[in-house]
Amino acid sequence: MTFPKHLLDGYQNFANGRLPEQRELARELAEKGQKPETMVIACCDSRAAPETIFCADPGEMFVVRNVANLIPPYSPDGEFHSTSAALEFAVQSLRVKHIVVMGHGRCGGIAAALTPDMEPLSPGDFIGKWVSLLAPAAEAVGANAYMTGAERQTALERISIRNSIENLKTFPCVNILHGKGKLTLHGAWFDISTGELWTMNDTGDFKREDNPQAE
Amino acid sequence: MTFPKHLLDGYQNFANGRLPEQRELARELAEKGQKPETMVIACCDSRAAPETIFCADPGEMFVVRNVANLIPPYSPDGEFHSTSAALEFAVQSLRVKHIVVMGHGRCGGIAAALTPDMEPLSPGDFIGKWVSLLAPAAEAVGANAYMTGAERQTALERISIRNSIENLKTFPCVNILHGKGKLTLHGAWFDISTGELWTMNDTGDFKREDNPQAE
Amino acid sequence: MTFPKHLLDGYQNFANGRLPEQRELARELAEKGQKPETMVIACCDSRAAPETIFCADPGEMFVVRNVANLIPPYSPDGEFHSTSAALEFAVQSLRVKHIVVMGHGRCGGIAAALTPDMEPLSPGDFIGKWVSLLAPAAEAVGANAYMTGAERQTALERISIRNSIENLKTFPCVNILHGKGKLTLHGAWFDISTGELWTMNDTGDFKREDNPQAE
Amino acid sequence: MTFPKHLLDGYQNFANGRLPEQRELARELAEKGQKPETMVIACCDSRAAPETIFCADPGEMFVVRNVANLIPPYSPDGEFHSTSAALEFAVQSLRVKHIVVMGHGRCGGIAAALTPDMEPLSPGDFIGKWVSLLAPAAEAVGANAYMTGAERQTALERISIRNSIENLKTFPCVNILHGKGKLTLHGAWFDISTGELWTMNDTGDFKREDNPQAE
Repeated sequence: MTFPKHLLDGYQNFANGRLPEQRELARELAEKGQKPETMVIACCDSRAAPETIFCADPGEMFVVRNVANLIPPYSPDGEFHSTSAALEFAVQSLRVKHIVVMGHGRCGGIAAALTPDMEPLSPGDFIGKWVSLLAPAAEAVGANAYMTGAERQTALERISIRNSIENLKTFPCVNILHGKGKLTLHGAWFDISTGELWTMNDTGDFKREDNPQAE
Repeated sequence: MTFPKHLLDGYQNFANGRLPEQRELARELAEKGQKPETMVIACCDSRAAPETIFCADPGEMFVVRNVANLIPPYSPDGEFHSTSAALEFAVQSLRVKHIVVMGHGRCGGIAAALTPDMEPLSPGDFIGKWVSLLAPAAEAVGANAYMTGAERQTALERISIRNSIENLKTFPCVNILHGKGKLTLHGAWFDISTGELWTMNDTGDFKREDNPQAE
Repeated sequence: MTFPKHLLDGYQNFANGRLPEQRELARELAEKGQKPETMVIACCDSRAAPETIFCADPGEMFVVRNVANLIPPYSPDGEFHSTSAALEFAVQSLRVKHIVVMGHGRCGGIAAALTPDMEPLSPGDFIGKWVSLLAPAAEAVGANAYMTGAERQTALERISIRNSIENLKTFPCVNILHGKGKLTLHGAWFDISTGELWTMNDTGDFKREDNPQAE
Repeated sequence: MTFPKHLLDGYQNFANGRLPEQRELARELAEKGQKPETMVIACCDSRAAPETIFCADPGEMFVVRNVANLIPPYSPDGEFHSTSAALEFAVQSLRVKHIVVMGHGRCGGIAAALTPDMEPLSPGDFIGKWVSLLAPAAEAVGANAYMTGAERQTALERISIRNSIENLKTFPCVNILHGKGKLTLHGAWFDISTGELWTMNDTGDFKREDNPQAE
């Protein structure tokens, strides 16, 4: 069981390049603890890493990554809820000031939500169950035969971001701090093809960052 | 609701720096789809981002991040299991060749597992429930009064990595492919203070990468 | 009844500027007749003039402009059909090689189609009747409560362009020449806010011209 | 289906030239909406574009273009009337202050009106039907064997402009606002060969703008 070489090579690049430059920072973050101001919920997709997109340094962002960057609704039922646990930790213990839900183009999880009749990937059908969190919206979008497949995909990617932000507000700790202005919630959508970042405004619409007036 | 400036500044650095260099790569990954060879389960901790530690490019690694980088045991009970969904997708759809469970030093989730009497962070006590996946091991480690607090912390961090790797094997899709040699499972532990990477060998022990004989 | 001064001033600018430069061209086009290669169907909107957007010279494009740049389906019923008449003239008499249906952002006609219960602008309700050409698609788009108003607007603007292109093919003269490869049909969508042009590809999706990979 | 290159080249000229100069104007017109003071009914002819002739900026004129710049009589019969719809929108919604009917020399639609026995361009004979709106006047002009073909052409072009202005007044919304002095109606005729503009006065006669006494 040899550790993958490509990862060891990558680690060497880090050890020779970035690490020496940030040695003091790393030591300080270890001794004093992390105090990231931002929590990001992003997708597992290999093309949508928030640290890359935002050029983040160690200590900057507390990152949860799951399929299709979903926040489930608040459900204190005693079950295992990893995303809820991360949220609770970020809000109550780390006291982050910003939560960003970041979706992206060509998301496989969103595509799965739009294909509910797809054969389960395994008998457990974990993906099918997980993306069913989006079932009502996926059904509404999927019913529109006038839109192209790509248009429905992008539509649901953005609806999902708004939906996750609404689900964030179902968590009492988020709702209270948000109401007091101590916590702000944001949406972003990353175009993996062009590297463009779109951010959400007050109407729930997304605008490209290098050109905020784009439709 | 203005998008956080520090994130927009970071994005500008990406847009001006790394993006132009990798424009062709991004376009190709978008058109052909992602084919990462590696899945990494890492912690949400802002000091332990796998893309940073392994200098990963877009398309290289499919990354799940949850508190304490835990893989729960296979549990096809129809509930929402985000980490299991990501695993199912990586193994069955993306057909990754490697899964790396990467833990790190000073992990807040591991610390929480070692403090079961800690006040819940919120009435939902999601963290408490989540880290109870480690309860048996945490109890055994916590009972050892001869080890220092830091030694118990590091011990459980490493036990947890081995535990997650065992839980990976409870997933039939992982077990089958692992048995055929098409999928290898790896453990790693990152020292956030020094930037050192320790990898797991066949005995379950961790060795530092730049000096494999160090204890 | 004095001719509006702002128009006379504009005409003077033309007479002193562009006209002297294109005097030969104008004379030749008058004597030999127009032979535009392109027909454009655009909206009446004051912010979406095709000659401006494409920097067209006299003789380049035969332009029909109506509310929401709609092509109605082929309907040889002996009624007055101005858009059909223009199409017939362009295809059969001028023998254009390209037909471009150009829509735009924030189209009032599309907004009217999405507000079927709106009070008629006059007892004749000409607009209501005209945009009812889009009723099925408008209803499908309007039913999606998950999309924002702006998202539905843009969705229908693009659906309408595809719909008009399909209606073009219901005209036998278009269908025959298109089938022979002597006439190509194109879609474009102009962002009046940013001046960006999006063109339609074979899947019916729209891509921004300065960045063809944008979603 | 590649978008025509000559149009993309023209768009690049616009994007590099006029657009940067008018970026603020475009943004403002998009955000606040269009408020053109003038509606122009012009011909589809590629040599008679009103924005070119009047050097119009975005937001200045709401433009309808059909064959022979005809306004049909008010006909609230529940049929599809695109020119009437545009008129209704301009007058009732945009509240334009001026309507200009602009004809031009060598108009193919007028020529068609003067050739009623011409073979239909297609079985639908849309042009034949459309220009029959001018049938009475075309018949009277056509009967005059003493005028040359070109004189009859110019005569009908100008008769048609006056006829369209009379048809504008058959629309109650136009008639009411015109009667109150809130809306003025104008005629213009553009000589495509020389670039000269002729405007209509109270007697219905047309005078050249740079030399009002010319016949």
